Amino acid sequence: MTINRQWRLARRPRGLVQETDFSWTDETVPAVGEGQLLVRNVCLSIDPTQRGWMARDTYVPAIGIGEVIRSFGAGQVVESRHDGFKVGQLVQGGVGWQDYLLTDGGGSLPLSTLPPGADIPLALSVLGLTGITAYFGLLEVGRPQPGETVVVSGAAGATGSVVGQIARIQGCRVVGIAGGPDKCRWLTEKAGFHEAIDYKSERVDRRLRALCPDGIDLFFDNVGGEILDAALASLAMRGRVVICGAIAGYNEKVPPPGPRNYLSLLVKRGRMEGFIVLDYMDRAGEAVESLSKWLGEGKIQHEEDVQQGLENAPAALRRVFEGKNRGKQLVKIADPPLPTP
Amino acid sequence: MTINRQWRLARRPRGLVQETDFSWTDETVPAVGEGQLLVRNVCLSIDPTQRGWMARDTYVPAIGIGEVIRSFGAGQVVESRHDGFKVGQLVQGGVGWQDYLLTDGGGSLPLSTLPPGADIPLALSVLGLTGITAYFGLLEVGRPQPGETVVVSGAAGATGSVVGQIARIQGCRVVGIAGGPDKCRWLTEKAGFHEAIDYKSERVDRRLRALCPDGIDLFFDNVGGEILDAALASLAMRGRVVICGAIAGYNEKVPPPGPRNYLSLLVKRGRMEGFIVLDYMDRAGEAVESLSKWLGEGKIQHEEDVQQGLENAPAALRRVFEGKNRGKQLVKIADPPLPTP
Repeated sequence: MTINRQWRLARRPRGLVQETDFSWTDETVPAVGEGQLLVRNVCLSIDPTQRGWMARDTYVPAIGIGEVIRSFGAGQVVESRHDGFKVGQLVQGGVGWQDYLLTDGGGSLPLSTLPPGADIPLALSVLGLTGITAYFGLLEVGRPQPGETVVVSGAAGATGSVVGQIARIQGCRVVGIAGGPDKCRWLTEKAGFHEAIDYKSERVDRRLRALCPDGIDLFFDNVGGEILDAALASLAMRGRVVICGAIAGYNEKVPPPGPRNYLSLLVKRGRMEGFIVLDYMDRAGEAVESLSKWLGEGKIQHEEDVQQGLENAPAALRRVFEGKNRGKQLVKIADPPLPTP
Repeated sequence: MTINRQWRLARRPRGLVQETDFSWTDETVPAVGEGQLLVRNVCLSIDPTQRGWMARDTYVPAIGIGEVIRSFGAGQVVESRHDGFKVGQLVQGGVGWQDYLLTDGGGSLPLSTLPPGADIPLALSVLGLTGITAYFGLLEVGRPQPGETVVVSGAAGATGSVVGQIARIQGCRVVGIAGGPDKCRWLTEKAGFHEAIDYKSERVDRRLRALCPDGIDLFFDNVGGEILDAALASLAMRGRVVICGAIAGYNEKVPPPGPRNYLSLLVKRGRMEGFIVLDYMDRAGEAVESLSKWLGEGKIQHEEDVQQGLENAPAALRRVFEGKNRGKQLVKIADPPLPTP
């Protein structure tokens, strides 16, 4: 009898998530039915968007009260009665905050296989949804041109750090906005950003005016709030704003005030556009191929912040909102139990 | 000795413009120099954007304190030492709030000629900057497709009424938002809008949900504020928002809160884009040709609200912000003094 430890949603969080927003359950894993497989989850991807899923219907339905917390992650197939998956294979997809996933492989975050011996943290960061988000959000929605000035918020975060480095590879001048001197130093000294702004100690609006005297051609926003307003105020003629996220407001029950300076879009003939990476999954291979190549050439630096133990998943999500993570936030909950085939 | 009566900017207005924001001057018209012409102004175009010009630098520099109020309008050439203009010709351009314009024909709103016998009110509304704004803003920025649902704010205004009618001609379903039952009745009974919402007596957010159950494919915004937020909340998948103006906020010293619901752009993969008609002036002929054709076929209804006398220019601008105008607000300040050639 195998026990499946799970975090379920106890109530809709208010503000920063608390442990009491979740309930811990121990379930017996049911028998694997025809067409199903059982995955031993190995590593969870902790993403700001999960806070939105807990709150309300967005681009996917909200997580129901009492349901296992929806989460991207990776694991290993330990039993299979499914033609598409073999025992021992590594997989990624919507595994949830739990030890085991019993599934038919489908759903809104379907399972896919990872190559044998894959580096799971990398597969969940630069080579996973995070990197794919950065790739298509920047290149397809933002369409940067060589020589343009690109500004990224949440620049030391999982997505932002990849966005800035792809922009640099495209020949853009890249300014990152991040919280604290350590993150800013990492941006300019390791990740090849041309400039960094520490929003915790500097006036972002003034620094953007100083660092972007000809305006911001492309602003890639993970944050929203005052930082978005500051960027709009410095928009260049025909500037673009890519809306990838708005972590500044995810913990608010009522949406915070919108961007006061949105009329810069009129004055500067600008464009503000949102996207969801799930729309690009049929082209994921193209992103992974480019990202792998750049990684191999040493052109993309990355960090993963790996917390240990399923019991720490709620605390790991708090870390992301408190800005304590450096790079991609992950939670390792097991080692692959079987040799990979 | 010819006297030129003028309205000049006395101070930057706060809130709704007051007569005391302007000063009235009587000047002697100087002699016409080589390469110059003298225009007797006949009709002034009163536009919400003028309030912005009085406040701050935008897409054009602010009107300086003591300068004649910048204004689009039409007049007749009464003297010319300029090769491009003949005495008696009708012209349009940046004539200013004054009886006479002494000019070399250039500037940020340069002069162009009108055909002999032109209907000046029509040339300043549907066949002028107003119609050209509607044409390119809707068709080039918004790109409506037949069968789509298009919502227009400020729908009984000069620009909005033309936008909605072009959208209807393109095969769209058109919902107009306007203030008061008379304007709404005009929209549905005369101008061929499919539905109208009276923002003064109805909850715009609820009515949009009811009238656009599949969402808004294209929102053409002249108003901003709560109406923009309501439209964003009802955005359809891949919906577009065209920012043409934001009359709700033009009288505020500090920009009012921005659109709280801008994250609909993310969830719905939407696009919000601004434009300035001056960027399209090299293609103005294309717009005027189409608009003339539609007018001739009776497909575009229009109204002009013509106030009388230069002394009433400030009051006419107030009318626009108080929503008292029906259709294009104009001020007639003279009859053409000469027979047109």
